[in-house]
Amino acid sequence: MTSTVLEPQTRGRTKLAVIDCDIHPALKSPKALHPYLPERWRRYRDTIGERGFSGSYYPRANPNAARTDAWPPSGLPPGSDLDFMRAQLLDAWEMDFGILQPLLGAGALRNHEYAAAMSAAINEWQIAEWLEPEPRLRSGLVVPYEAPELAAAEIDRLGDHPGFVQVMLGIRTSEPLGRRKYWPMLEAAAAHDLPIGMHFGSQGGSPITGVGWPSMYLEDHAGMSTAFQAQVISLVYEGVFEQFPTLRIVLIEGGFAWAPPLAWRLDAAWRKLGDEVPHLQKKPSAYLAEHFWLTTQPMEEPHVPRQFAELLDQAPWLEDKLMFSTDYPHWDFDAPDEALPKTALPDGFAAKLMAENARALYKLPTRVHAG
Amino acid sequence: MTSTVLEPQTRGRTKLAVIDCDIHPALKSPKALHPYLPERWRRYRDTIGERGFSGSYYPRANPNAARTDAWPPSGLPPGSDLDFMRAQLLDAWEMDFGILQPLLGAGALRNHEYAAAMSAAINEWQIAEWLEPEPRLRSGLVVPYEAPELAAAEIDRLGDHPGFVQVMLGIRTSEPLGRRKYWPMLEAAAAHDLPIGMHFGSQGGSPITGVGWPSMYLEDHAGMSTAFQAQVISLVYEGVFEQFPTLRIVLIEGGFAWAPPLAWRLDAAWRKLGDEVPHLQKKPSAYLAEHFWLTTQPMEEPHVPRQFAELLDQAPWLEDKLMFSTDYPHWDFDAPDEALPKTALPDGFAAKLMAENARALYKLPTRVHAG
Repeated sequence: MTSTVLEPQTRGRTKLAVIDCDIHPALKSPKALHPYLPERWRRYRDTIGERGFSGSYYPRANPNAARTDAWPPSGLPPGSDLDFMRAQLLDAWEMDFGILQPLLGAGALRNHEYAAAMSAAINEWQIAEWLEPEPRLRSGLVVPYEAPELAAAEIDRLGDHPGFVQVMLGIRTSEPLGRRKYWPMLEAAAAHDLPIGMHFGSQGGSPITGVGWPSMYLEDHAGMSTAFQAQVISLVYEGVFEQFPTLRIVLIEGGFAWAPPLAWRLDAAWRKLGDEVPHLQKKPSAYLAEHFWLTTQPMEEPHVPRQFAELLDQAPWLEDKLMFSTDYPHWDFDAPDEALPKTALPDGFAAKLMAENARALYKLPTRVHAG
Repeated sequence: MTSTVLEPQTRGRTKLAVIDCDIHPALKSPKALHPYLPERWRRYRDTIGERGFSGSYYPRANPNAARTDAWPPSGLPPGSDLDFMRAQLLDAWEMDFGILQPLLGAGALRNHEYAAAMSAAINEWQIAEWLEPEPRLRSGLVVPYEAPELAAAEIDRLGDHPGFVQVMLGIRTSEPLGRRKYWPMLEAAAAHDLPIGMHFGSQGGSPITGVGWPSMYLEDHAGMSTAFQAQVISLVYEGVFEQFPTLRIVLIEGGFAWAPPLAWRLDAAWRKLGDEVPHLQKKPSAYLAEHFWLTTQPMEEPHVPRQFAELLDQAPWLEDKLMFSTDYPHWDFDAPDEALPKTALPDGFAAKLMAENARALYKLPTRVHAG
């Protein structure tokens, strides 16, 4: 391993440092987790397999909903070949760091013991095959989040490993995340100073909207932001941030333009009926502003670019909370050189969005050793 | 009945004409619908009663979630006394018109024949006790919307009555409204040139968010806008407005500040995966801009009033689609003299918002005979 210092002047495609907050590593084969699973669960995976809720799927056009150019020359599935990911993503865009979000469905499996075993196996696989070989990578710790005590145990087991910078959940849980059921997990995350990252997708056992099952993937995709809104509402009103004052939540691939109107709505309802939530010590929007980070992809760019500045005017806290992401290797990849709206932005905002907000949240160094 | 011409110079509290798009009439007593129900359903109402889905309720502090000052001197329930409604609302604010939205739960009853009988009874009650005695009132036609053929029959029966200016649904249907199940009802509404009004509340049989059941009414209230967003997504992507090009949708008490970001999100997903909806002839946000109207209450006023103007900049079509409403006699009443944000607004917008958008949509005259 050689040591390389990245200096801004060496950058080709962008002058700014780049940290990608949403990269999806894939398995090389269905048996790629076997070395990390106990025999009992290897057998289970071969004979029974995954049991969860259904109803939400990525488009089938390519495996893993991948970009058509994301197939490695090795013939391995998109996202599974570290060398190709280095070349196509980390090196090509001269990224300081990339944050992995494995989407292998383990966290929400109905068999909670299997969910715990799969989560642990995925985390060991991440350490051995991604984090140790590539120092620019960090990752989300996969946990069986519908069994919060088991999730807390996994956080206690690996939460202090330097490669894991957050706990990773799907956005659609079985109950809103603010409910007491999940508090043991939230408490463990706060104790290890790990943000909770919630990613686009998953399913909790009920229809994916409050008005029943839609027909199309486009409805699922456009409507995913409503699941993020429901989680914010729950976490804020349930008083989670009074219970765990250092807890931070990262909303990944769920958009962000809905945040200012939601902040107004949270406050308006509370001003009239706040007696239902006497545990809140400040106005609801203050918790949103202080405790939530959001990633950019899929970029919700307004029809007129200058309206992006209006969003920052409406929610100035977004300047310190928006974090760039690509969603590599998925079909709706946002490239670093196209991420910034073509409009006047506050001084320093571009650097914050592209890297510095993530660097501060995840406590990443300013220099990195490239492999 | 005497004839009175309302002239702007006679107005006390506001110089602008006022049309209130969301007034809730109540029953004087549980038996108040009996004169309008066939004997078979009177017996059913007395012995079996209403069967629906549960999980969403108004606060219990006052019956009908009413303002504490909305109790008529007659001792009748809030919203049930026309004389008091005249004095406290129509006369006090010198309203040109008020649009009734009865929230009696009939449309979503599980017994579809009973739902149809109750809908018809409520409509006859509206004609006899509200629309005929008070020419400033118009109303939504209640229909058994989970049985769309029966709903279409009620629209055919009364849709041309001059007192009914829209078809009225709850926002939380059992399936997203764009699904073919509902098309016979949408077709009938379009045939009678009646907008479909969808109002805050109701329940469709599944958890009221896409991530399960929340704990508190505040979560239900703040999160209601996500149900409205899910319905917009469904109606747009399913191609309903290509099928029924004159169909108009009114979103009542669901907010409006979420509309610009949703428009961006609808278009962004469609630009990448539009092949799933080849029936769309224009970009998704164009259908939102053309076919949807929204009422103001509960007013989602930004923390900084000038940001209201940013919303209009982001979605200029809102200038012609936002309609004033009070939600009388409910607890979160918005008064006409407090409805307009204290900021610079486009020329003529105040008049449009307070009355003229509703007058155009509902084809209401410029003068009215007061009783």
